[in-house]
Amino acid sequence: MTAFNALMAYQRETSALAQIAGRLGWDQETVMPRGAAAQRGTEMAAIQSVLHARRSAPEVGDWLAKAEAPDAAGQAQLREIRRAFDRARKVPGDLAKRLAQVTSEAQGKWAAARAEEDIAAFLPVLAEVVALKREEGAALAAGGDVYDAMLDDYEPGITAAEIAALFNAMRPRLVELRAAVLEKPAPAGVSGTFDAEVQMRLARRVAQVFGYDLNRGRLDKAVHPFSSGSGSDVRITTRTSLTDPFNCLYSTIHETGHAAYEQGIDPAYALTPLGQGASMGVHESQSRIYENQLGRSRAFTGWLFDEMRGLFGAFGIADADAFYAAVNRVHKGYIRTEADEVQYNLHIMLRFDLERALMAGDLLPGDLEAAWNDRFAADFGYAVDKPSNGCLQDVHWSVGLFGYFPTYALGNVYAGCLYQALRAAVPGLDDQLAAGDTLGATRWLRENLQRHGGLHLPRETIERAAGAAVSEQPLLDYLEAKFGALYRL
Amino acid sequence: MTAFNALMAYQRETSALAQIAGRLGWDQETVMPRGAAAQRGTEMAAIQSVLHARRSAPEVGDWLAKAEAPDAAGQAQLREIRRAFDRARKVPGDLAKRLAQVTSEAQGKWAAARAEEDIAAFLPVLAEVVALKREEGAALAAGGDVYDAMLDDYEPGITAAEIAALFNAMRPRLVELRAAVLEKPAPAGVSGTFDAEVQMRLARRVAQVFGYDLNRGRLDKAVHPFSSGSGSDVRITTRTSLTDPFNCLYSTIHETGHAAYEQGIDPAYALTPLGQGASMGVHESQSRIYENQLGRSRAFTGWLFDEMRGLFGAFGIADADAFYAAVNRVHKGYIRTEADEVQYNLHIMLRFDLERALMAGDLLPGDLEAAWNDRFAADFGYAVDKPSNGCLQDVHWSVGLFGYFPTYALGNVYAGCLYQALRAAVPGLDDQLAAGDTLGATRWLRENLQRHGGLHLPRETIERAAGAAVSEQPLLDYLEAKFGALYRL
Repeated sequence: MTAFNALMAYQRETSALAQIAGRLGWDQETVMPRGAAAQRGTEMAAIQSVLHARRSAPEVGDWLAKAEAPDAAGQAQLREIRRAFDRARKVPGDLAKRLAQVTSEAQGKWAAARAEEDIAAFLPVLAEVVALKREEGAALAAGGDVYDAMLDDYEPGITAAEIAALFNAMRPRLVELRAAVLEKPAPAGVSGTFDAEVQMRLARRVAQVFGYDLNRGRLDKAVHPFSSGSGSDVRITTRTSLTDPFNCLYSTIHETGHAAYEQGIDPAYALTPLGQGASMGVHESQSRIYENQLGRSRAFTGWLFDEMRGLFGAFGIADADAFYAAVNRVHKGYIRTEADEVQYNLHIMLRFDLERALMAGDLLPGDLEAAWNDRFAADFGYAVDKPSNGCLQDVHWSVGLFGYFPTYALGNVYAGCLYQALRAAVPGLDDQLAAGDTLGATRWLRENLQRHGGLHLPRETIERAAGAAVSEQPLLDYLEAKFGALYRL
Repeated sequence: MTAFNALMAYQRETSALAQIAGRLGWDQETVMPRGAAAQRGTEMAAIQSVLHARRSAPEVGDWLAKAEAPDAAGQAQLREIRRAFDRARKVPGDLAKRLAQVTSEAQGKWAAARAEEDIAAFLPVLAEVVALKREEGAALAAGGDVYDAMLDDYEPGITAAEIAALFNAMRPRLVELRAAVLEKPAPAGVSGTFDAEVQMRLARRVAQVFGYDLNRGRLDKAVHPFSSGSGSDVRITTRTSLTDPFNCLYSTIHETGHAAYEQGIDPAYALTPLGQGASMGVHESQSRIYENQLGRSRAFTGWLFDEMRGLFGAFGIADADAFYAAVNRVHKGYIRTEADEVQYNLHIMLRFDLERALMAGDLLPGDLEAAWNDRFAADFGYAVDKPSNGCLQDVHWSVGLFGYFPTYALGNVYAGCLYQALRAAVPGLDDQLAAGDTLGATRWLRENLQRHGGLHLPRETIERAAGAAVSEQPLLDYLEAKFGALYRL
């Protein structure tokens, strides 16, 4: 057997074990008995330890030194295996173990602190997490920029400076659009209650309308919507609110975007490093374009309005135009996950600047709350009223996810680029969406992006599909046009 | 760190990984998308390969050579780790891999052959399985008896000769009891249909009545009822038939026996070799005593009759005595899993003799059907009408489970021993059961047997709890008394 083939056989087992670890995560959030949490922690640690050992095994280094890729896909496989190998070798085992322990503890403390609005109870363990992450970042950066090294875990090939430049270009137009929209009267929302079971039936229907293959997946309820798994076992979750059916439906469409990406990858890449999305940002481009550019379009919401009227009767919305306005309602708020298309990226920019400062040591965890609240007031024009609406709202930092937040905004930017190309390539798109037919759009995305999985680096993945360099302009043009019309600016 | 502590830390990770493999099995039978089957096979193979490598790792041998157990439980840990190590070292990796492949293929062919009543389609792959299992048995036996070596996987410490002696002692009394019962008119069964959701609600209630802790477990539907997992994540499944509610209820009580055993083990043994049942036979003693001696008793069925009347209204059974007779109805049949207490062990004896002959090479797979049908006619008095009612009815041999069947009958024998001791120790048992209170019985079982997990060898586990040598007499006395009274013999 050649070194390349031996490495790929070994890697296939590693990828299979990684899938198992992902399934355990799904189990934990959906069906695990509550009393099993402590034991599950030990089980998770055991399989993560096996995965770390396999990724950093000396024989992987030997194979990598000798392996000759037979083709471009093989070269991409080697690139990804080498990236995981280098990363696993750079972080000392002890540090990885301490990080796992501290973040596990920190997540619990974060949840309790958020529930109690008690930021002081969270700061000490956050300081530990920040210190350990800076240590890990230094090990990964090997002399380079610490935050750049962290970004590499989620969006390989991008730098903090590039993201900062992108965000700086986006910021003025977003601020201006937001201010103009919020001066106008807000459109009416839905009223009444919406049966949870009927919501789930509609969610299942909508997921299938967007091309989700339930023969290779499933839809369940969970506290937080997510998508997990690759290959032929990609599962999504959603949640229901009796008064807000859009929570369930648009969470479902969002997760369907993630899941359809995984399901759309060339089966030849299954259980290899290329058999999953190219990056968090590219993944988010799929969830966002499904949810927003397609799912919240005037055309598709027209179809959805009829479906909902059929299932729920009247719910306080007069016609399809009013429904479109309700789905795209812009309102003041504090919470990132509840933000609309206009304001979402401003939430991300705030987090990006703060976490970059935390990692550089320019901001101390003890000063985080003041820094957050000052920045929020400056960006949004009103004060944070309580920590759960401020710097305690997101789980990410407690579990050590630094460098992850910007991928959400990158996903939006990528989605803007892709949507521009998609509209040019699929002329009858609006007519299709108005009939509840997403096939023209999803087939284009599958052919031009999804099927390649991790073959290309993230930016190249987007640029090959969009046929143009990544830029914030298509997204901003789209937002200004859409909300300009909706709010008669 | 001492060698013992190092070994136990390593073993804890191995046990955690084994729990993960078990959870994957649960997932596969309950929630896995149909289209994920092939990928799941690869995932399962990957984690089994990790487990095999860990169990047979050279460092385990080094630790075993140096380890000094601090106490009796430590000695038992070393005994179990050594048994798994020796077994893993004795079977060549190639053979294990071929067995995994062939049995996976054979299971599919068995299912198809059973559906098509086409035994010829199954025989070639069965011959392969038998040949590989004999090869494996020879490796395990290292000069000793092949079938004894196989028994050791499921019931450590027992020999085929001991089982044969036990079965020979049981057989005449069982044959006589069966003949006498079948001469009498059969009692009436239930009539009408039983809502599946209501059955499941009652099943959940009954599982809790028998002490199943749903905070550390869950009850779902599956094609075949089973129990899986150890420690604080022990899950059970059942199934529903619209016309036969006993299928759901007694499957649930049976699996609750298995699950309560796992949940009752001393938490100090969690994620160690002692943190699971002592053997398949001891496990079956718990499922059987819950299902039969307790669950099918006159006392408990009186309570169940009232519950079912409340939930389902009338269902063709006049009173609690008639209900007790219906629950314990003895009728002619072909299928082991549908057999009553009187006939069940006769089904096992047939399989034991045939599989022992297959492993000894005295019976060729090509002659299996004739041997089965001859023996069945001799034991049951009527001819097998089709292969799915004969030698194609069970999955076991297709997946290489030779030496497993006798543990079902051992479980019955053990349950007989335990029940005799339990009745002596809990004087008001019938009054408790008649009120739907199993706590007196289940607490005695927990204290005297379940909490010890794998601390003692199987026979010792039973004898310590029962306070007497294992014998078939208590079971046979119980069966003759119960069915003698029921059928007025």
